[in-house]
Amino acid sequence: MPRLEMDGTDIPHARPGEAATTLEGLATPALLLDRGRLDRNLARLSSRMAARGVALRPHMKTGKSIDVAQRAYPSGAGPITVSTLAEAEYFAQHGFRDIIYAVGLAPHTAARAMHLRKAGIDIKVLLDSPEQAAMLGAAGRAAGVTPSAFIEIDCDGHRGGLTAIDPKLVVVAAAMDEAGVKLAGVLAHAGESYGLSVPAALVSAADNERAVAVAAATTLRAAGHECPVVSVGSTPTAHFAEDLTGVTEMRAGVYMFFDLVMHGVGVCTTDDIAISVLATVIGKKPEKGWILVDAGWMALSRDRGTAAQRVDQGYGLVCDVAGKIYPDLIVSQASQEHGILAIRPGSARTLPDLLIGAKVRILPNHACATASQHELYNVVSADSNAIEARWPRMRGW
Amino acid sequence: MPRLEMDGTDIPHARPGEAATTLEGLATPALLLDRGRLDRNLARLSSRMAARGVALRPHMKTGKSIDVAQRAYPSGAGPITVSTLAEAEYFAQHGFRDIIYAVGLAPHTAARAMHLRKAGIDIKVLLDSPEQAAMLGAAGRAAGVTPSAFIEIDCDGHRGGLTAIDPKLVVVAAAMDEAGVKLAGVLAHAGESYGLSVPAALVSAADNERAVAVAAATTLRAAGHECPVVSVGSTPTAHFAEDLTGVTEMRAGVYMFFDLVMHGVGVCTTDDIAISVLATVIGKKPEKGWILVDAGWMALSRDRGTAAQRVDQGYGLVCDVAGKIYPDLIVSQASQEHGILAIRPGSARTLPDLLIGAKVRILPNHACATASQHELYNVVSADSNAIEARWPRMRGW
Repeated sequence: MPRLEMDGTDIPHARPGEAATTLEGLATPALLLDRGRLDRNLARLSSRMAARGVALRPHMKTGKSIDVAQRAYPSGAGPITVSTLAEAEYFAQHGFRDIIYAVGLAPHTAARAMHLRKAGIDIKVLLDSPEQAAMLGAAGRAAGVTPSAFIEIDCDGHRGGLTAIDPKLVVVAAAMDEAGVKLAGVLAHAGESYGLSVPAALVSAADNERAVAVAAATTLRAAGHECPVVSVGSTPTAHFAEDLTGVTEMRAGVYMFFDLVMHGVGVCTTDDIAISVLATVIGKKPEKGWILVDAGWMALSRDRGTAAQRVDQGYGLVCDVAGKIYPDLIVSQASQEHGILAIRPGSARTLPDLLIGAKVRILPNHACATASQHELYNVVSADSNAIEARWPRMRGW
Repeated sequence: MPRLEMDGTDIPHARPGEAATTLEGLATPALLLDRGRLDRNLARLSSRMAARGVALRPHMKTGKSIDVAQRAYPSGAGPITVSTLAEAEYFAQHGFRDIIYAVGLAPHTAARAMHLRKAGIDIKVLLDSPEQAAMLGAAGRAAGVTPSAFIEIDCDGHRGGLTAIDPKLVVVAAAMDEAGVKLAGVLAHAGESYGLSVPAALVSAADNERAVAVAAATTLRAAGHECPVVSVGSTPTAHFAEDLTGVTEMRAGVYMFFDLVMHGVGVCTTDDIAISVLATVIGKKPEKGWILVDAGWMALSRDRGTAAQRVDQGYGLVCDVAGKIYPDLIVSQASQEHGILAIRPGSARTLPDLLIGAKVRILPNHACATASQHELYNVVSADSNAIEARWPRMRGW
């Protein structure tokens, strides 16, 4: 545990505008990314998919960074998924050309996606209604390009899409034909798998996602439509799927970083979690069992995803500056720029003895949400206090 | 209710890089700010404080925008409160010189604040321990300036600070003297008032905040310390305080915009809420009673502050594009870029008939959190679909 000198004669933190070179010198709160863990997480899912002959199309909504994307594709751009057209434009500018924009289409996004397509980007969009097919066809004609779209398949009722047995499936495909929109394939996302934690249930959710997507493709093919791609995925199902027969590509995003929610699902250990928020102790309330830090919800996000899991991690699980977990020490409350560290209710452990100025790392509930609160990743490695790089994040729509 | 043409021959949205001039032309999700409501909210609290002879020191953590600050101070800079040193530096660059940084001090923030002080900014910081006093004194000596700090007073046990009867109060003041730190005054924040909703309880919380802060100042003065400023405030107590005897200044932030949590507390009506998120319908699931929009938690934030109130507003209350509320239509679920609109459980109302491409406005639970998800405010006025201005927000630490 680091103890900064309290006499203040040697305050080693970076001044405004300077980049810190060590964790001790970094102003807080700050987002850390452990490059070794990132690479290990990337390799784990890549190997898993390679062994099954299924292409991996990473979702960039978690990382939102060209540097993170380049760790996934060290030898050149490959297929990616995005959640906003700002992401599509950003990654296109950085050399990525095979992009699925995996959010349902609206008029303004249709026009903007076709703008990208005209620029030579093979962007595929998502729809589930004849209205969207007609709208996309018109946007394609206006831009002078042939649009390509996936039909969104609903495998578990969590959001949009059509079920495999919905008669509208062939109606939408026919509307796409009529509108001059190429059917890229079908796309399913087992969002409900985030609520599971029993391995057998996760295997089952993965098989359901696969089965529904393949059934939808079969229906479309039987109706005379080419349906080349069967795209499925979520981080839990990508890691628990045993049989991927009929699936051609897998999508996942949060697996790059993992987080406490994924730990609660059972997809990773806490040692796999690649991002954390560095914070500084700014106050103590021993009579309440509290330590105050300068990471509130602005740095951690308001995400309380573990509240619905067996172990509620508050706003995050606290580690020392080197990343070693303080057992049962969580961020129990958060206001905008304050976090309150306390021992988890029911635990017999005691508060660690942290002085004002001491630094801690906080593992987040939800990597996508926490990372989005920050402008850049301070890249670190295990067993070193050096900041090796600063990787900017993009944001907005 | 606007119905965009579905044939797509006339897609009027701004292209990437262009600024929209009307709501219809604005790509979504986007943050809207109603200038008339902002001005009315600002005037309401200014008048209230002027009538009581108490200075108002607005908290800039909600707006984080020089343009918003200039609506609060149309004729020149005045005293402000900030939640990060990045805010302090930003507002200092824009001409604000009287600044309280109202988060407990750490070594790196002490050094950075003294850097600002050396540049001529009258920044006051916050502490509640002799260690912080010593640290600040050393930082001041290193920078060649005399630091000025408030002692944080704990009026309701919600976070940091010392109670008015804590013997440490005079110990901290003595440590400040010894360290060469000027005692600016005492500062209390009735954070627990956010959990109230009965007017009498709010009046009582305000009086408690006042009484504790004044008692702390009295103790310090009795011990021979000058304690010129008695600073209190939270948006609820600022609006419900009846007696402010002994208080010299009031702090509040979210009152500029208000939000559904403040509506639940009873400080404002929904017609006072000045910010909203413009979203577009991207899908429909009539069999589930759902309308899907392109505003998920990335646009709305994960804040679920109304979940603990009498009326749970989900992730926000839905209005038509002109701002008229659809009664009982809320954002019932949110994923990263998807929101699901549904009628509130228990309501007999039915879903409005919104086509794909239709736009809605969503009133947020928590203005500070929702605004922080966006890069700029699209400034609008009631009874107009024109976007009058785009006001950038700052972020980071």
